[in-house]
Amino acid sequence: MALPAPLHGVIPPVCTPLGPHGEIDTASLTRLVHHLVDGGVHGLFALGSTSEVAYLTDAQRGTALETVLKAADGRVPVLAGVIDTTTPRVLDHARTAAALGADALVATAPFYTRTHPREIAAHFRHLRTAVDLPLFAYDIPVAVHSKLSPPLVRELAEDGTLAGLKDSSGDEGSLRRLLVALGGRTARRTGPAPGFSVLTGSELTVDAALLAGADGVVPGIGNVDPAAYVRLYDAARAGDWEQAAAEQERLVALFSMVDVGPEPEMGRSSSALGAFKAALHLLGVIDRGTTAVPQRPLSEEAVAEVGRRLTAAGLQPVR
Amino acid sequence: MALPAPLHGVIPPVCTPLGPHGEIDTASLTRLVHHLVDGGVHGLFALGSTSEVAYLTDAQRGTALETVLKAADGRVPVLAGVIDTTTPRVLDHARTAAALGADALVATAPFYTRTHPREIAAHFRHLRTAVDLPLFAYDIPVAVHSKLSPPLVRELAEDGTLAGLKDSSGDEGSLRRLLVALGGRTARRTGPAPGFSVLTGSELTVDAALLAGADGVVPGIGNVDPAAYVRLYDAARAGDWEQAAAEQERLVALFSMVDVGPEPEMGRSSSALGAFKAALHLLGVIDRGTTAVPQRPLSEEAVAEVGRRLTAAGLQPVR
Amino acid sequence: MALPAPLHGVIPPVCTPLGPHGEIDTASLTRLVHHLVDGGVHGLFALGSTSEVAYLTDAQRGTALETVLKAADGRVPVLAGVIDTTTPRVLDHARTAAALGADALVATAPFYTRTHPREIAAHFRHLRTAVDLPLFAYDIPVAVHSKLSPPLVRELAEDGTLAGLKDSSGDEGSLRRLLVALGGRTARRTGPAPGFSVLTGSELTVDAALLAGADGVVPGIGNVDPAAYVRLYDAARAGDWEQAAAEQERLVALFSMVDVGPEPEMGRSSSALGAFKAALHLLGVIDRGTTAVPQRPLSEEAVAEVGRRLTAAGLQPVR
Amino acid sequence: MALPAPLHGVIPPVCTPLGPHGEIDTASLTRLVHHLVDGGVHGLFALGSTSEVAYLTDAQRGTALETVLKAADGRVPVLAGVIDTTTPRVLDHARTAAALGADALVATAPFYTRTHPREIAAHFRHLRTAVDLPLFAYDIPVAVHSKLSPPLVRELAEDGTLAGLKDSSGDEGSLRRLLVALGGRTARRTGPAPGFSVLTGSELTVDAALLAGADGVVPGIGNVDPAAYVRLYDAARAGDWEQAAAEQERLVALFSMVDVGPEPEMGRSSSALGAFKAALHLLGVIDRGTTAVPQRPLSEEAVAEVGRRLTAAGLQPVR
Repeated sequence: MALPAPLHGVIPPVCTPLGPHGEIDTASLTRLVHHLVDGGVHGLFALGSTSEVAYLTDAQRGTALETVLKAADGRVPVLAGVIDTTTPRVLDHARTAAALGADALVATAPFYTRTHPREIAAHFRHLRTAVDLPLFAYDIPVAVHSKLSPPLVRELAEDGTLAGLKDSSGDEGSLRRLLVALGGRTARRTGPAPGFSVLTGSELTVDAALLAGADGVVPGIGNVDPAAYVRLYDAARAGDWEQAAAEQERLVALFSMVDVGPEPEMGRSSSALGAFKAALHLLGVIDRGTTAVPQRPLSEEAVAEVGRRLTAAGLQPVR
Repeated sequence: MALPAPLHGVIPPVCTPLGPHGEIDTASLTRLVHHLVDGGVHGLFALGSTSEVAYLTDAQRGTALETVLKAADGRVPVLAGVIDTTTPRVLDHARTAAALGADALVATAPFYTRTHPREIAAHFRHLRTAVDLPLFAYDIPVAVHSKLSPPLVRELAEDGTLAGLKDSSGDEGSLRRLLVALGGRTARRTGPAPGFSVLTGSELTVDAALLAGADGVVPGIGNVDPAAYVRLYDAARAGDWEQAAAEQERLVALFSMVDVGPEPEMGRSSSALGAFKAALHLLGVIDRGTTAVPQRPLSEEAVAEVGRRLTAAGLQPVR
Repeated sequence: MALPAPLHGVIPPVCTPLGPHGEIDTASLTRLVHHLVDGGVHGLFALGSTSEVAYLTDAQRGTALETVLKAADGRVPVLAGVIDTTTPRVLDHARTAAALGADALVATAPFYTRTHPREIAAHFRHLRTAVDLPLFAYDIPVAVHSKLSPPLVRELAEDGTLAGLKDSSGDEGSLRRLLVALGGRTARRTGPAPGFSVLTGSELTVDAALLAGADGVVPGIGNVDPAAYVRLYDAARAGDWEQAAAEQERLVALFSMVDVGPEPEMGRSSSALGAFKAALHLLGVIDRGTTAVPQRPLSEEAVAEVGRRLTAAGLQPVR
Repeated sequence: MALPAPLHGVIPPVCTPLGPHGEIDTASLTRLVHHLVDGGVHGLFALGSTSEVAYLTDAQRGTALETVLKAADGRVPVLAGVIDTTTPRVLDHARTAAALGADALVATAPFYTRTHPREIAAHFRHLRTAVDLPLFAYDIPVAVHSKLSPPLVRELAEDGTLAGLKDSSGDEGSLRRLLVALGGRTARRTGPAPGFSVLTGSELTVDAALLAGADGVVPGIGNVDPAAYVRLYDAARAGDWEQAAAEQERLVALFSMVDVGPEPEMGRSSSALGAFKAALHLLGVIDRGTTAVPQRPLSEEAVAEVGRRLTAAGLQPVR
């Protein structure tokens, strides 16, 4: 389907449910997509960090993307993460995603290798030229250990390389500078890159990002409560910033579930992904809370605590 | 003077004008304080990072603080930075600041040495016990290379060690989590630390911080245009978030002056401080734009560009 | 072929020559392998960082490994890098490498995702269990952004998970602590992990590593001058540390070729890999100095400077 | 006293014993200096990181330096650390140290503030011009968060700004590149900076640094066993590298005392300094193992373990 320009709204990074042997649980994934689309989201981001893309084999990535596309069934656009170390490897994923029918691609800067802004620009330009799909830059320094500067993003927005940015840098000052450089809250659509979409991945400050002029959000915890992010987005669009902030506060409280995993025993990724999946399991959306190898599972106690946080937020565990 | 609880509003970190030989230019500093107080600010933060505190000898620190206190003359509270590597050295500064009449102290976590959250907590508790002034924690990882976690700040807020936080971490998600933990936008004053003040040092996202429930802001570029931050604050207090965002956008554009220094030739600190001081000089507030040794001065061309940015923002250079 | 236990000596990470369209130049790669084996090296490390493994598609990785194995023809063991983000993806590479006939596997800690020592241990144990080949841990924090601690490596050495370590951490103090924990210079072979091999990837301090008891070296610039590293190794084995240090000094001077690339224009990886490949091209070993996309090529001037450094080191450019 | 050029040998960073209220224990400090000089050391480094300089008030720094100078009594040269954030503050310390009679100054790059190589060069040049004492650069990225590059050090060595380098960067490859650039093992004294002294602070790889051509070492654990470092140094000077390596191995084992502190409860600095001071107390050299506020003390169990490590190393606890 054609992508709105700019892409806007709530576009959750879809979790990837796994079966007992680490295989993709396509039935659960289908239910999760329905849960999200029924929640009112405006798009889906498959194969993102929250999808455990870094843990999925190429075959699993294909299965996951196919399943999301089939379940979405054209109701909302599906963006596909094409996460790999450098251009040639990303291109392989991009071609596969295009063949499967993804509506847009989402790529990070190169990682593992030490890189340079001019090389990062070349990377995105190569991708855009080689595969004819809208391309989003995924700025995630915690994973790739470099930051996309506002001037670099603006350059690639203006020349048409990028259709948008998913900003998971956590650097809200930098995001604000980019938005102002692109025209600000009132002149973005007549600015230097009129159709360019700015999406924040900072799920705890979405009201702020929307107030600053961002077009939407890619919230990991939106898997658990998509409707709340849609309410937040709608309040912001209506100019009801107090309501937007109130919705955000409730989601910040819910987000605290990522801390239930015992820090000395597991990585931050495991803890957050494990909590999201445990919540989806408790809510009856997916069959198991399993995370991919070598992540450590949440303890039973931690899962019980996730359940209490759901209840406190007014969500109804069914297990 | 007694500090409001919570301290709130616009509390700029006061630049420290220097004479031709690096000495404190007390006449210029006095004019700067008047410029700020006349601009409507609610407090002053002397001896902060933007004050080049790291470049001032102990004698100069004393001169600067005395000058600010005298010029403020009780019209607004004066917070004094007590920035040094560890507790015993910070205590020396704290005692001096108390003797000179500062209304509150602002201390970072230990730096230079590798430290631990339990040691950071002990650090603040020692300071609070030894000197009877309200104590603010200054969270500035870019300088001290550790981050104050929301649970640690909450602990020190609840037990009365801290009167407030100046958050220059740039981690707005973490700030939001702290605010929600303290009761959120509606229940902070009846929460676990009712008088605790949360001030953001992220001068590009102040509308967002106030929407999230922060009490005020410590903006470096507030030296140049204090009245604009006061308008931003007042709009936010009135619930006019669109106006607050518009003021913020104008200030983001003005802030771009920090980029005029040529990156390959000077540090980021030099560039930002040099631009702020150049602007104050061009506006006729201070006599020279000189920054402390070993920072490199802005080129003439860069200073001219600062002037153009002032004019573009509707401020009137007089030189 | 069976791997010596411990693996020892000079085991260069084999560069991957590319053709004009970025394809593997198998003829050049074959010549490079002969250049290395004729230089006296004790093993080959295919698909390492210096092999631009992060830039090679899966198909290209297969081609490169096959070519190296065929050219080596059993004269020296071939280790295969299985570099990818997490266990499931690494396993795919490991199975391919085993099927192609690699003699051992070399894997890093997970990257892109935030991980934890207990997860890293589980990662290596999964790999060792799933594929029946000797497994080397590749400690390269500059790429994966975590460090393998000496106690963790010792644990995995003692329980037989790891056959060895390739230490590219640059943390020689940590390496020394590991070596001492394993028995030190005189008691390693009767210590807790008698067959465990410690290889340094720090090509500028090989004399030091061998003096400390390391078993060998994986030197990137060993592609250019393998015989010199063999002389260094032989001198060390003979206890002639003065001669070993003299050889090392000559190689440090030669290594300065990695600085010829203009820093403001290209990444550190591009600069180093570009210099090694330019040198191999100038020496007539490979047909082109091309590096993979999106790395920037060395300028003509930089290539000329590489040539001068070769000549200064007594090597004979033929172009 | 005149400093040898180059300064060479074993120059321990002298621990600063404290009394029950955190005051300098000058009697213990005097005994410690005798312990070190009697152990054969070639110089003393007062007010370094291991001296807890970051925890000492200006008054305490003066007391400590005076005590060391008096106890050394001209038998060995005394270098004084002048550790502070930027040039003006460092200058205050430098003038005090000169007035007290220090033989040389040791200064880091600026910290707390973000700086630039050109500003760092200006910093050292200002210091050298303002105070007429030999100046050593102290490269300690773990504390100041910038690294002195070999070309920068060479520039400041060649123009006479620096008399030497204390390299605590842990980057042995960088150190080797510097040594080679200065002429290498055989031509340093006729190279571009003939009297320049290169001292390593990497106490676990001293044999390697000496093999590479370094002039000496500044070992923290040299407080505990100075004679062992002198034996190591003498063996290296005699070309007996096997013996040097054997001495180093014993010291690596002894160094493991820094791990006795429970990591979840204290900082790395506290743990290492606490262990060194506990060892000195157990050996009867100083009266208390107290470390400065806000560091946490070692537990009794940890102190007992320090005692066992001393005994294992053949040292004789007297308590």
